[in-house]
Amino acid sequence: MDELLSWRREFPILERTIYLVSHSLGAMPRATYERLQAYADAWATRGVRAWAEGWWEMPLTVGDLVAQIIGAPPGTVVMHQNVSLCQSIILSCFEPQGKRNKIVYSELEFPSVIYVYEAHARDGRFRLVRVPSDDGITVQLERMLEAIDEETLLVPISHVLFKSSALQDVQAITRRAHEVGALVILDTYQSAGTIPFSVQELDVDFATGGSVKWLCGGPGAAYLYVHPRWHDLEPKVTGWMAHAEPFAFALPPMRYAQGIARFLHGSPAIPALYAAQSGYEIISRIGVEKIRAKSIKQTEMLIRLAEERGFKVNTPRRAEERGGTVTIDVEHGAAVTRELLRREIIVDYRPGAGIRISPHFYTADEELEIAMRELERIVSTRAYAEEAMGADFRF
Amino acid sequence: MDELLSWRREFPILERTIYLVSHSLGAMPRATYERLQAYADAWATRGVRAWAEGWWEMPLTVGDLVAQIIGAPPGTVVMHQNVSLCQSIILSCFEPQGKRNKIVYSELEFPSVIYVYEAHARDGRFRLVRVPSDDGITVQLERMLEAIDEETLLVPISHVLFKSSALQDVQAITRRAHEVGALVILDTYQSAGTIPFSVQELDVDFATGGSVKWLCGGPGAAYLYVHPRWHDLEPKVTGWMAHAEPFAFALPPMRYAQGIARFLHGSPAIPALYAAQSGYEIISRIGVEKIRAKSIKQTEMLIRLAEERGFKVNTPRRAEERGGTVTIDVEHGAAVTRELLRREIIVDYRPGAGIRISPHFYTADEELEIAMRELERIVSTRAYAEEAMGADFRF
Repeated sequence: MDELLSWRREFPILERTIYLVSHSLGAMPRATYERLQAYADAWATRGVRAWAEGWWEMPLTVGDLVAQIIGAPPGTVVMHQNVSLCQSIILSCFEPQGKRNKIVYSELEFPSVIYVYEAHARDGRFRLVRVPSDDGITVQLERMLEAIDEETLLVPISHVLFKSSALQDVQAITRRAHEVGALVILDTYQSAGTIPFSVQELDVDFATGGSVKWLCGGPGAAYLYVHPRWHDLEPKVTGWMAHAEPFAFALPPMRYAQGIARFLHGSPAIPALYAAQSGYEIISRIGVEKIRAKSIKQTEMLIRLAEERGFKVNTPRRAEERGGTVTIDVEHGAAVTRELLRREIIVDYRPGAGIRISPHFYTADEELEIAMRELERIVSTRAYAEEAMGADFRF
Repeated sequence: MDELLSWRREFPILERTIYLVSHSLGAMPRATYERLQAYADAWATRGVRAWAEGWWEMPLTVGDLVAQIIGAPPGTVVMHQNVSLCQSIILSCFEPQGKRNKIVYSELEFPSVIYVYEAHARDGRFRLVRVPSDDGITVQLERMLEAIDEETLLVPISHVLFKSSALQDVQAITRRAHEVGALVILDTYQSAGTIPFSVQELDVDFATGGSVKWLCGGPGAAYLYVHPRWHDLEPKVTGWMAHAEPFAFALPPMRYAQGIARFLHGSPAIPALYAAQSGYEIISRIGVEKIRAKSIKQTEMLIRLAEERGFKVNTPRRAEERGGTVTIDVEHGAAVTRELLRREIIVDYRPGAGIRISPHFYTADEELEIAMRELERIVSTRAYAEEAMGADFRF
């Protein structure tokens, strides 16, 4: 008996679909309706007083909720709109110092993050060093470690790679980075909520991620963790919320707030922060350890079901090297994915990787069997629209 | 008979308070409840498909709604979280070129905006030139014009100054800036929704503002207008939404989208964009010309009521030099404001300026009379908490 299935009733979409896409957009908790109503009620009854009654502090108080999930101490996490912006804020704290101007990343990083570094490297102030992957699934640890040297300033890495769901050895990379004086920025977007970890134990310098995926918090609520040893940095991407006394409306120069608040900028996206909380609370109540135990069981099952059918699996076989998703590479994957969607089996497709399928704590084993049976049927009968065969897949 | 008062029933807070703080947080339209429910319904029933069914395009489609209010052509406005970030995005398009490295601003700008420029000027690459004000109410036009020279790169100015509600001569400043090859970034936060204008007619290079105030859209929905002549810029604060083919997940270098989409970054704050729309629609339906006509009448009335009581008014007397707010400077203004709030008369206070009082299209003349009568009573009876006398006022 799978006790986690009792949570199914909290997620309306599970009544209508086989929802296997939590690596992209996690299912919405029913309680999100109430949160959004609470937001509107505060605005409609308290008006401008809502700011002093909680809104102004929300990027910090909601950040503390995320902190519990990612093993961060209170007062070390702030909320922002998305990870790309978090990375811009982090990078804006740094100037290249002499030869220390290298940013080392792997070619399997989420590109959005690297676009930020590339844009800032264009004028020659930073150098970008790309570590290649042989198979598109993993990046050889040795290659990452070799690329990190005394000239390295920042190492932005993903905890779990978005296409293949491969888990990276964060501890080894962080140890190497710190040995040579480089800093690690960990993207935990694809791990928080499905892989138990602690940013404190991993000893990374920064961590960032969003709520769209395993945290079931929806868009607009990304988090930025900054290790307390970096609470004296001065981000250039800034604004009045980062000021020590924002309501003094003081002229420049900027006087930064103490602690994590200095990593804020202008006014927050309050409704997104309201909407995100129900997901965090459910994840916290269940506990990520339990979610992970079930995830390992179900991703193993998916891999077995795929291999029985002769499908290529682009995800590591060993549970300890794998996140919450199984990527299955079939011919005409984009078109097959569209047909699965038409049949209310919700998955997605990434070029160069395949169909991404994700159970979460609310998934029943039976749903995985149905999904794989339908996938097999679609492939064997070629029951997908020919005109869609070459098309990209959006979300 | 004031036909605009028929809109009162659309704003729940007007049943409970005398709401005179639309320069800070505009009243929430009742329809915002439905918008937020529509957001949750899309997530709860369509799941990840909601992105392809409208969410992904929302920063542009909602931007087009704002464009109608600020006189911008379609396809020139994108939505972001707040103005400070918009300014970071704009600045990230530029490098100082030789001697052209000056950023000219007035000391009455909203400080959050200038914190961004100051932070980027710290390493000496940009120079900040501050134009002083004699009276804290206006900035002498001549001084602004003199400060703008051939070494000037950017001129960030407010259309309406946040403390005094003075209207600036944008056309004169823009003409001068363009004569010498400088660019103008217009902050229309305190004008959009209460002052009719067109960014096209004003010929500014960029405009930005948010929805928290006169637009009645709430937090998290700021807009960035970029004149089409600058649609070839390449912001360094960026992300996958700014990419020509975001769903190709291509490695760097970044390939920017054509047009306004290149000024996006990572994923948008969807619930904030849903919430903001009802306000835009109401403003558009009424028309800003009508709102302005009523605003001039009611701000004149407020000034008269204040002067009759011997209060100092820190807002220009001439309607054509004034935005939608009247700032009244009384002794112990912060404490007096708290007492007004306790009596459900919702205004705010800014140090160095005074109590800010704003009628909007939904305000009844009678409410202004009541507010001024209460203000007079509180001042004459000193009916405010002594312990609050020196305190700052938040929001």
